[in-house]
Amino acid sequence: MARTTGSDGEKTEAAVREAAVSLIARLGYEAMSMRQLASEVGVQAAALYRYFPTKEDLLFMLMREHMEGLTAAWTAARPATADPAARLAAYVRNHIAFHIERRHATHVSNMELRSLSHERLTQILRLRTAYEKELRAILRDGVETGAFDIDDTGLTAMALIQMMTGVIVWFRPGERLSIAEVTASYLSMTMRLVGARIDTGTYNAARPFGRAKDAVAL
Amino acid sequence: MARTTGSDGEKTEAAVREAAVSLIARLGYEAMSMRQLASEVGVQAAALYRYFPTKEDLLFMLMREHMEGLTAAWTAARPATADPAARLAAYVRNHIAFHIERRHATHVSNMELRSLSHERLTQILRLRTAYEKELRAILRDGVETGAFDIDDTGLTAMALIQMMTGVIVWFRPGERLSIAEVTASYLSMTMRLVGARIDTGTYNAARPFGRAKDAVAL
Repeated sequence: MARTTGSDGEKTEAAVREAAVSLIARLGYEAMSMRQLASEVGVQAAALYRYFPTKEDLLFMLMREHMEGLTAAWTAARPATADPAARLAAYVRNHIAFHIERRHATHVSNMELRSLSHERLTQILRLRTAYEKELRAILRDGVETGAFDIDDTGLTAMALIQMMTGVIVWFRPGERLSIAEVTASYLSMTMRLVGARIDTGTYNAARPFGRAKDAVAL
Repeated sequence: MARTTGSDGEKTEAAVREAAVSLIARLGYEAMSMRQLASEVGVQAAALYRYFPTKEDLLFMLMREHMEGLTAAWTAARPATADPAARLAAYVRNHIAFHIERRHATHVSNMELRSLSHERLTQILRLRTAYEKELRAILRDGVETGAFDIDDTGLTAMALIQMMTGVIVWFRPGERLSIAEVTASYLSMTMRLVGARIDTGTYNAARPFGRAKDAVAL
């Protein structure tokens, strides 16, 4: 967007995004008005429309950036190794870290798909499918090399993604468990779920807690 | 509600519930108006208010009935045995069957908690906690008897519930897999995740498919 205001414009746009994610997460997309959003950011409603000509443009942009950000994070985190268990561990770690950092944006992305036009919905779903395909490929490789023991890679991929994304529903930083502890526990559950023939400790540099029986120290 | 119309009134109330679940799932609670709902059901808006004095009364009732229905279904499905694996299998089967049958109501129950008053939110969360506690008790018994091998029963219960409820996001009857096949696969994933020392086939009267390698027939 060519704007004479330069970095001020960028700052406003960033403020709009942040306020929009938080308002939509709180009220729902349909209930949020552009007027309300403008007032939250402290600009005139007309200014908003310079960045986002329609409310749906804004929603689409938030969802696209969320998925592109997730894909970019995974591309950066993806290990060079062919080892399926190491790749699965990296996928789990990246997925949980990304979503815990972006709890509101994740809610918006999961809950407001119904408000996108058909064409834009297709674009978002294509990004999701590509991301999920990476997980399915890891699971399939694991089955082929004998590292994993899985009934149905498609179902297992969906189950894992729902299980991991679900962390944002109940997890709050600063409560009983740290992000590292939650991630370690989910990693261990994932490795069991895929029937990994490895010691899951291998992929937890510092496994923060033991079995339930001796977890009194938590 | 004492009403002279008798079963007509009950029919109207049921029609209101059904239309409300479907409208809220489609538009979101904040965006749905009572006027819109009345028009969907084919009654005057004033008639709606006889059943539900406020829009929030309606939402609360939908959510309460959803959780009470889930609890009642589990009470009916809960096996008499003390065996943790058999109880876990029953919990998984009931949870998946209940939610697949009520996809829209589940979306409403999970997405619209933000619109309840504090007091009512507390009531709904209390019902949820009681239901989840049943799962935690099964997991804990399994750890104690040595049937399961679990790091953290609280985390495992949340992971399982998110994983199972997630079925409604992608599952559509009549596609690649039947409800029985999906349930069998989730049951098998659950038993692995909790480190069950049993043949999961024991709890699947007819396990509908084999390992991924020989699943060509699907």
